[in-house]
Amino acid sequence: MNGDRRVARGARSRTMITRHAVDVASVEGLSGLSFGRLAADVGLSKGGVATLFPTKEQLQVATAEMAGEVFREAVVQPASAAAPGAARLRALIDRWIAYAEAPLFPGGCFWAANLPDFDSRPGPVRDILAHQRRTWLALLAEQLSQAIAAGEIADCDPEFTAFQMDALLNAANIAMRLGEAGVADKVRRAFDGLPA
Amino acid sequence: MNGDRRVARGARSRTMITRHAVDVASVEGLSGLSFGRLAADVGLSKGGVATLFPTKEQLQVATAEMAGEVFREAVVQPASAAAPGAARLRALIDRWIAYAEAPLFPGGCFWAANLPDFDSRPGPVRDILAHQRRTWLALLAEQLSQAIAAGEIADCDPEFTAFQMDALLNAANIAMRLGEAGVADKVRRAFDGLPA
Repeated sequence: MNGDRRVARGARSRTMITRHAVDVASVEGLSGLSFGRLAADVGLSKGGVATLFPTKEQLQVATAEMAGEVFREAVVQPASAAAPGAARLRALIDRWIAYAEAPLFPGGCFWAANLPDFDSRPGPVRDILAHQRRTWLALLAEQLSQAIAAGEIADCDPEFTAFQMDALLNAANIAMRLGEAGVADKVRRAFDGLPA
Repeated sequence: MNGDRRVARGARSRTMITRHAVDVASVEGLSGLSFGRLAADVGLSKGGVATLFPTKEQLQVATAEMAGEVFREAVVQPASAAAPGAARLRALIDRWIAYAEAPLFPGGCFWAANLPDFDSRPGPVRDILAHQRRTWLALLAEQLSQAIAAGEIADCDPEFTAFQMDALLNAANIAMRLGEAGVADKVRRAFDGLPA
């Protein structure tokens, strides 16, 4: 096998491993990832997985990055078809509810499953999860700012309101997992409750 | 040693083990509890721990129960000195912020650390965590109802508002762990924002 083919095969294996690791980590947490189990699940040797990810931390960071990509494709990109401001905000929330309800990952929201685990443990895994969280909050705040500028909603502190909205989405994710009724409605109602 | 003394010693060991297990589980999660580590930490034999908790699930349930007791003592009981309604609600929120800020458990909120992990895994551990969550939400909703009845806040859906308040507290817990600034103020501001 020549070098180019080896690189391409390595990239495919990386994608396959991390995409499966996202599913595992949405249920078991990033701490629950094991080289042996991932290798068995995707049909590679444990050594093959370890060559691609020399440390568990590198595997965890790569898994978080993959989760971010899947989330962007499922939630952020489809919503970008809507006009900036209230319409895009509503689209983001609808896509987010679909993401948690479907659910895209077997354990529900990937960050809800992993941030509480890593928020007390400084290091690269916490750093990427925190960065992804900030990116999401900034996206919500930006749409809120646009909605205010366009007169679609009343003036409010976009960052504070984004914090509240994200809080509600996370609570909804847990409530859905626990089988509570009417959760998606609660979230939509909170959004509709933004003063216009 | 006679039977009574043995029972008393068993109860003390149980308390010592579960109280320590709560701290460990607030950081590592209930899944991260191990008989060997707990035994070493509290100076008992692994067999001694296993006699008191025949299965890991029993250890996890007992640990969640202990976390509930510690939470009640730190948050719920002190707040019950305040008059029912808005005053008690404010006291609950202040105590909750102190509980997450101090923090009472090294990893921050015990339920924020464990509900996302167990919400997708039916069984007795999920059951007790979900029951504790419902008890807390019901307490908030009850104080909201009293506050509405007393004319202290405008009419609202107490259960829905309790859901939102709890969502914000959980988000605040994570934001504090991530070192974000002004989190406690955000929570108090949201509470103050309840229409009077």
